[in-house]
Amino acid sequence: MTYDLIIIGAGPAGVSAAVYATRQKLSILMLSKDIGGQVAKKAVDIENYPGFEKISGPDLVDLYKKQLKANDLSVTLGEVVGIEKNDNIFSVKTVDDKEYKAISVIVTSGAESKLIHVPGEEEFAGKGVSYCSLCDGPVFKNKDVAVVGGGNNGFETAVFLSNYVKSVKVLEYGEKANADAENQELVAKNPNIEVITNAQVTKIEGKVFVSAIYYEDRANKKEKKIDVSGVFVEIGYSPSTNFLGNLVDLNEKNEVIFNSETLETKTPGLFSAGDCNVSRYKQIVMASGQGALAALSAYNYIRKVS
Amino acid sequence: MTYDLIIIGAGPAGVSAAVYATRQKLSILMLSKDIGGQVAKKAVDIENYPGFEKISGPDLVDLYKKQLKANDLSVTLGEVVGIEKNDNIFSVKTVDDKEYKAISVIVTSGAESKLIHVPGEEEFAGKGVSYCSLCDGPVFKNKDVAVVGGGNNGFETAVFLSNYVKSVKVLEYGEKANADAENQELVAKNPNIEVITNAQVTKIEGKVFVSAIYYEDRANKKEKKIDVSGVFVEIGYSPSTNFLGNLVDLNEKNEVIFNSETLETKTPGLFSAGDCNVSRYKQIVMASGQGALAALSAYNYIRKVS
Repeated sequence: MTYDLIIIGAGPAGVSAAVYATRQKLSILMLSKDIGGQVAKKAVDIENYPGFEKISGPDLVDLYKKQLKANDLSVTLGEVVGIEKNDNIFSVKTVDDKEYKAISVIVTSGAESKLIHVPGEEEFAGKGVSYCSLCDGPVFKNKDVAVVGGGNNGFETAVFLSNYVKSVKVLEYGEKANADAENQELVAKNPNIEVITNAQVTKIEGKVFVSAIYYEDRANKKEKKIDVSGVFVEIGYSPSTNFLGNLVDLNEKNEVIFNSETLETKTPGLFSAGDCNVSRYKQIVMASGQGALAALSAYNYIRKVS
Repeated sequence: MTYDLIIIGAGPAGVSAAVYATRQKLSILMLSKDIGGQVAKKAVDIENYPGFEKISGPDLVDLYKKQLKANDLSVTLGEVVGIEKNDNIFSVKTVDDKEYKAISVIVTSGAESKLIHVPGEEEFAGKGVSYCSLCDGPVFKNKDVAVVGGGNNGFETAVFLSNYVKSVKVLEYGEKANADAENQELVAKNPNIEVITNAQVTKIEGKVFVSAIYYEDRANKKEKKIDVSGVFVEIGYSPSTNFLGNLVDLNEKNEVIFNSETLETKTPGLFSAGDCNVSRYKQIVMASGQGALAALSAYNYIRKVS
């Protein structure tokens, strides 16, 4: 069958797009690796999504699931590896060799944690090296840990971990940490968190599990060692856009470039919403707004071509 | 005192902007005629705001109020009548002759119901002519009413009213009603609602209260009369942008034109979010996303100039 619309991804943008599209009576396939995207992994409560004074990431994902169900929507689990457009029909291919067809596609594939690319990172992944403090944090009760990255994600991770661990060292490459004022304040008043700036991580060491992280102090070029049981990598995200091939233009960060009024990419009928695109800020409420806009734009496109 | 930021309006865009701005530790004045804007007047439950399967407008506004309170934010009630920028400081004047100063301003003043401008409309406003079915609908229990306008607002109003009234006639000027598929279906299966297209409303008649509405059938130019006790005007909204003077450029609908990446208007430091601007769709989740974006853009502006 040919769907009206395939939505790739089921994070805030994908869920919002699906809710809007189904209210336009479109036939929809939601195709995603997971439900909730980064929201499902958020280490601290969400306090900036309008309508909720405070809600945990997993709780918000549960509400997404309920809302999808109430709209008779379900998510087909699958990792998209390629997409083509022929004779005005899109074919979306998944890693398990399935192929799905639709008149229009909205890409809300989000972003993946960036790696630091140092010796030991790959070897100890899942053995002390983590990209999800919410998933793994409680395991490090009363241990010393390091967080790599001094942006909002790094600071939020440090604050979250401080509830469990003995100490957190935040290693920031730059001269100063870029986390916002609120997070800076939370970290500053937390005696268990220390922020080390000018720190370039050089390796992660251990036997079976992580035992230490090394960094070069960029001010004096000296290498230093910190004994830690865990390393949480929070240096940002890379957009998941490799599968899009030449159907879209990407910027230098591999983010999808779009028409900001409609969210359409350079390929007619192919739209993008959320963290995989060039929007300056990656926020749940903004991704949600974009999902809705992409759905209404897709609806107009489908009505025009079919 | 000079605030970092004045936010004009306290609907979805204004609330979202305030929550984001306060997390950046900005000093904020929220200035608005009301809290919740159009959301407070919504006649049917909201089913397309991500995170809520279904929520009434007033309930969502209550959640906004709670969230503002949790962030130590309050709304100063006041109607803005003018705004100026001198020496990089904005002065915002209200109808009661007060003046407030700030480094940056976000305009989220939303939109007001459009009038049909026919004889009787002004005379019977509040006496059968209504622009808020949620506020006034229950008064018309077991009566016959008309809804002017066949867009989503008109159809939703008709469906809402059908719970109370004996019959609803929807009068649509165009050849077909523009409401979306979901609303068309709801109306089609409701025996108490009739949609009349090609209908140009000509006057509203009554003694103390409304007793009839007249329209010209545009197909045959004949005037027809319908006996009704209530007329609900739902022909759309006009942006509340008159007070902005020459600080902004407006499009032909009087909507604020902005840079779509930052939401900044032509005046540096003056931003716009929500229904008062040129965005194609007016949706709660989109206004919320824009509020957040405007706040972060304003923060960058304030950091740069102060």
